Amino acid sequence: MKAVFTFKIKDTQYEELTKQFPDVTFSVFPSIKEAEVEDANIIVTYGEDIDESILDKASALEWIMVASAGVEKMSLSAIAERNIVVSNVKGIHKTPMAESVLAHILALCRSLPAIYENQKRKEWNKKVHSVELYGSTAMIIGPGAIGAEIGRLLKAFGVKTIGCNRSGKPVDSMDDIVEFSRLEEALPQADFVISVLPSTPETKGLLTSRHFDAMKSTAVFMNFGRGDLVKEEVIVEALQSGKIGHAVLDVFEEEPLPLDSDLWELSNVTISPHISSHSRNYVPRALEIFKENLVKWQTGDRQLINLLDPKRGY
Amino acid sequence: MKAVFTFKIKDTQYEELTKQFPDVTFSVFPSIKEAEVEDANIIVTYGEDIDESILDKASALEWIMVASAGVEKMSLSAIAERNIVVSNVKGIHKTPMAESVLAHILALCRSLPAIYENQKRKEWNKKVHSVELYGSTAMIIGPGAIGAEIGRLLKAFGVKTIGCNRSGKPVDSMDDIVEFSRLEEALPQADFVISVLPSTPETKGLLTSRHFDAMKSTAVFMNFGRGDLVKEEVIVEALQSGKIGHAVLDVFEEEPLPLDSDLWELSNVTISPHISSHSRNYVPRALEIFKENLVKWQTGDRQLINLLDPKRGY
Repeated sequence: MKAVFTFKIKDTQYEELTKQFPDVTFSVFPSIKEAEVEDANIIVTYGEDIDESILDKASALEWIMVASAGVEKMSLSAIAERNIVVSNVKGIHKTPMAESVLAHILALCRSLPAIYENQKRKEWNKKVHSVELYGSTAMIIGPGAIGAEIGRLLKAFGVKTIGCNRSGKPVDSMDDIVEFSRLEEALPQADFVISVLPSTPETKGLLTSRHFDAMKSTAVFMNFGRGDLVKEEVIVEALQSGKIGHAVLDVFEEEPLPLDSDLWELSNVTISPHISSHSRNYVPRALEIFKENLVKWQTGDRQLINLLDPKRGY
Repeated sequence: MKAVFTFKIKDTQYEELTKQFPDVTFSVFPSIKEAEVEDANIIVTYGEDIDESILDKASALEWIMVASAGVEKMSLSAIAERNIVVSNVKGIHKTPMAESVLAHILALCRSLPAIYENQKRKEWNKKVHSVELYGSTAMIIGPGAIGAEIGRLLKAFGVKTIGCNRSGKPVDSMDDIVEFSRLEEALPQADFVISVLPSTPETKGLLTSRHFDAMKSTAVFMNFGRGDLVKEEVIVEALQSGKIGHAVLDVFEEEPLPLDSDLWELSNVTISPHISSHSRNYVPRALEIFKENLVKWQTGDRQLINLLDPKRGY
C-alpha cells in the first residue's frame, strides 16, 4: 500500500509512521506539483490541490485524507464519480479556533486595541470604555464541533448562546436554537454574531444586507467559517454606515485579501489572515486521526473517522 | 444620618438612594477636597483620599464605605484608633478583572498584537506562530474572589491552575495549592504567573529576582494586584535578559507610570494603565453593596458585607 503526503511532515513523524505501519510505503512531497501520485492508494493533503488532472493521474487512488476542514476547493463531483473515500480532520480545529474567537471577543470588550495604541504613544490613558462580556448574547451560525466549543467557552463567561442551524434541532452549549429561516428575527438579540459555517452550495451568500440591517448597531460580526457566506461589499457597507459596530474576519471572498479591498481602509474591522486554527498541535493531531483511520483501513474497515460525503461537501 | 459621597454618581442613582432611605441625607461631591465632611456619619469614597486631616475634620464619622478593593493609601492606623468601621466592595471586581486577564492571555496566545500590526501595514501575513492556551499551566498568586474567578475561567480552557497563598489551604478553582514559602520551587511549572495580591506589609516586595530566575524563559508574568509587589527594576531586568517571555502589567510602583520608566521602551511588555476592573457595571454594583450595608447599618447591625480589619489592611 502506498500513501503520499502533499505537505512536509517532520522526520520524527515520518519515522513513527513507518514504524507503526511497516506494510505501507510513505512518500512525502512538499506539494502536489512535486508529488508522484501514479501508484498512490492514499493521498494525505491540505485539500486545496486535488483537481481532475491529479485524479486522472492517480488511477490507484482509493482514499483522500484531508488534513483540514474545508474541501470546497477539491473536485468533489469528480471524486464522488470515482468512488474515492474522503475523510477530514474535523474536530482538531475546535480548540485553537474557539480560543481565537474568544481572544478577539475579549480583546474588544476589554479595550486591548486601545491599550496597545496608547502604550506605543507612552500615553497613560485610563479612558478606554471597557465593557464586560458577562451578560451579553451571542448568535452562533452553524454550530457543529467548533461552534459548540465556542458556545461552551462563552457560557463560562456568562454569555447567552443562540445557535442557528438548518434544522432547528438542539445543539450542545446553545441555550436556544433557531432555524436558518428565522435568523433575521433572532439577530436583534445578539451582541456577537459568529459564523463558523463551511462553504457549501447552501451557505454561499446566505447572509445578505437584510441580516445586517437586523443586527444591533453595536453588534460585532465575526466570520470564522468561509468567506463566501456574505459579499464583502455587504460587510463594508454595514461597517461604513454604522449598521454594526465592528467585524472580525478570518476568512474572505478572495484570499489573500486584495490590497485594493475597502476593508483595509476601515477602522472598525479586524483582519485576521485565515489563521484562527493555527496551532503547534495541528499536524500532530491530524496525524493521530490519520493513524487511527489507517489502522481501520488496513483491516478493510471503511467506516473512517470524519468520513465526508463528497456529494454534500461536508 | 448623613452620608457623603466623594465621587459623582448619576442623578437616577441619587434619586434611588433618597427614595429607599428617606431618613438619610445624601450629599454628593466630585472629590474629597470639595466635600463637607464635618457632620458626615458615613463617607462613600474610592479610598484614595482619607488622610488624617480629613479624619480630624470628620468628627462624626463612623463608617467608611470604600467603593474599591485596595485601601493601602488610607491612614488605616488612624482609622483604627478612631474605631471607624471600614467596608469595601470586594467581589465586584472579579468579573471585569478576570475578563481582562483572560483577554490578555488569549491575545498573546492567539497573536492578536501581530495581527493588529500586520493589518495596519495592509500585510496578509500568516506566519504569526499562535499557540494554544489549552494544556498550559497558570500560577495564581493570592487567589481570593478574583483569583478564583480567573482560575475558573482558565480551567474552562483546559489550563492547570496552581494557587499560591500564605496558608497553603485549598482554594476554589485551583488544581493545586502551594504556600508562599514554596513559590520558588513551584514557579518552573507555570506558563502564566498571575498576581492578584493586595498591598499589605507582607506582600510588599514579596517577589524578587530569584522568583524571576525560577520562571520559564517563555513565561508570561502578569501583575493585576498592586505595583509594590515587585520592584520595577526587577521586572525590567527579567524582560531585558530574557528570563521571562513577556509581562502584562496593570499596576505599577508609581502610577501613572513615569514617562522615563524603562518599561515604556520594552517590546515584550503590555502596559495597562490600572484599568483591568473597569466596567459600566462598576458603580451600580458598588451601590448595591452600599445599600445592603446601609439597611443593616440602620438597624444597628455592624456585621457589614466586606467588613475590613483596618489594622491588617484587608
